[in-house]
Amino acid sequence: MNLGTPETPFLAVDLDVMERNLRRAADDASARGLALRPHAKTHKVPEIARRQLDLGATGLTLATVAEAEVFADAGFTDVFIAYPVWPSESRAQRIRSLSERVSLRLGVDSVQSAEALGSALTGARLEVLVEIDSGHHRSGVNPAVAADVALAASRAGLTVAGVFTFPGHGYAPGERARAARDEADALAIASFTLETAGMDVRVRSGGSTPTRVEADQSVLTELRPGVYVFNDAQQAELGACRWDDIALTAHATVVSRRGTDVIVDAGSKVLGADRLAWATGNGRLPDTPDARATALSEHHATIRFPEGADIPPLGSVLRVAPNHVCAAVNLADELVVVQGGTVVDTWKVAARGANT
Amino acid sequence: MNLGTPETPFLAVDLDVMERNLRRAADDASARGLALRPHAKTHKVPEIARRQLDLGATGLTLATVAEAEVFADAGFTDVFIAYPVWPSESRAQRIRSLSERVSLRLGVDSVQSAEALGSALTGARLEVLVEIDSGHHRSGVNPAVAADVALAASRAGLTVAGVFTFPGHGYAPGERARAARDEADALAIASFTLETAGMDVRVRSGGSTPTRVEADQSVLTELRPGVYVFNDAQQAELGACRWDDIALTAHATVVSRRGTDVIVDAGSKVLGADRLAWATGNGRLPDTPDARATALSEHHATIRFPEGADIPPLGSVLRVAPNHVCAAVNLADELVVVQGGTVVDTWKVAARGANT
Repeated sequence: MNLGTPETPFLAVDLDVMERNLRRAADDASARGLALRPHAKTHKVPEIARRQLDLGATGLTLATVAEAEVFADAGFTDVFIAYPVWPSESRAQRIRSLSERVSLRLGVDSVQSAEALGSALTGARLEVLVEIDSGHHRSGVNPAVAADVALAASRAGLTVAGVFTFPGHGYAPGERARAARDEADALAIASFTLETAGMDVRVRSGGSTPTRVEADQSVLTELRPGVYVFNDAQQAELGACRWDDIALTAHATVVSRRGTDVIVDAGSKVLGADRLAWATGNGRLPDTPDARATALSEHHATIRFPEGADIPPLGSVLRVAPNHVCAAVNLADELVVVQGGTVVDTWKVAARGANT
Repeated sequence: MNLGTPETPFLAVDLDVMERNLRRAADDASARGLALRPHAKTHKVPEIARRQLDLGATGLTLATVAEAEVFADAGFTDVFIAYPVWPSESRAQRIRSLSERVSLRLGVDSVQSAEALGSALTGARLEVLVEIDSGHHRSGVNPAVAADVALAASRAGLTVAGVFTFPGHGYAPGERARAARDEADALAIASFTLETAGMDVRVRSGGSTPTRVEADQSVLTELRPGVYVFNDAQQAELGACRWDDIALTAHATVVSRRGTDVIVDAGSKVLGADRLAWATGNGRLPDTPDARATALSEHHATIRFPEGADIPPLGSVLRVAPNHVCAAVNLADELVVVQGGTVVDTWKVAARGANT
């Protein structure tokens, strides 16, 4: 590796791999007639969002008002906050201000929220989408009663553009296709209830990186994957990407050794501590897929190599793919951009920590 | 709660609870004749470190050179980087510069690291402590061979001040006393091997928040707890603190409800995703200890209330104690300081993300 100057640990983006990931998802969506509205909470970087739009994305998905403010400041004009936003007084003021700068959509998942949003945002130029629970059981209403929420929103003076869901239960081995089926079924049912109540449903939005390629284009109009830009150890273990599709890795120095284990200086404060029940470790080495992080502390990752493998020497630098790249990016102030092994740029993680 | 203006989610420090935590640990250490060198990686806030020194701390412990640089910039003059630092060329330069500003100690845990440090830092004014593995099996040498590392350091021109360990295996129910016993045994053995080799051992440093009160003052000279300043759900579940000893909580708004669950807007990007195998959830509610976070996404925590409990309404604000407060603090740019329910200050998390 010829990475030039950065001191470990740091997060590096392989520009060519990222570009390939972006193109593939854009081409897939385009070929299937689906709008692509990438979730920018993964990268939080305006330079990347710009590239997504250049490749045909119709707008951005974001998780918080604060993230939307960052991207509006960076010149983006079409934003969906895919979250059941609660309009506290100060937040409502910020949403109103945002709605004057961008084409804005918000999520809503209850009659009471719809009434609160309508009351707090009277006259603001925005649309809402009703969030549907398609099996992940987080936020979102049962699709059978989606019309109750939509009608409440409409009565409260809000424009309802359609329905959306997050099939997060597709983040489990063997569950991607089933979760995509649940996603389509839930959106179809919710859509039917709205139409039966006399409402127009222009948007049926779903999607996640592991379910993206399984999404049903006869139901969905829009996909909102986020992780696909970089991929991560979870996606590789789910079979949603190959090891060489991982565009973001932590570069970390070996500081200690014990048997077939080495300790590197990228711990949970760099990689994030996310670990789903089925994950085989706390991070993986794309360059040595048989090795994995078996333990994390804040500044230590224990990397276990298979018996008989060459154990890297003290002072050498390894590339570690985090389990969940969104969490890793949100820990970093900047990303180091690498092309052909050379640092070519750094990008500020502009929306880091923008949680409000 | 009368918290004034901050928009949720945010991290709040209860000043009175923090002060009580700081005093208790300072008094305990003083009563037992142990030096207290708090690990400032937990809080990363110079204002808090200043208070720790005012209450008698002999200096600070930090995890990285970058953290040490932040605290040196803030005027602190006595720093132990309790980590097996590997001296890359640029890092060695930074350590050398730091050693001209502060009284500096570094960790070392192998003969090869000792030689590399000695070679890279010739003539620098600093001391090293040999890191010992007392049972946590992360970095650190077997205490029986500690003298090999100490002698290599000495031959390489470094001044060896003593030995240190982190009894991290005390982070498990019922294991605190045993881990403290292991800590003392390992430090005693390592110390004996150094003394047998003719070396002076001035420092035997150990400690962690859960093992702090069990530390053996007949062996240890110094304690390095970090978490005790705030405490967290892990410490409460371990029995290392009471619920009302938790000084830092995330304030989060209820955005969605389903049965006995509510969804609040502080997810893993606010609380951190740390969850040890024995933890009962992803965070706890100090004001309602029977409730817990049962699932985390980046911007959602699912809080489950016991059957029959009053379920908080949409828009209400709950206080959630993270599992691991060090991880939560490292996600925040600032901490909101509360006294008697009123916001009295904000502190910048000055060393946030200072991982290099």
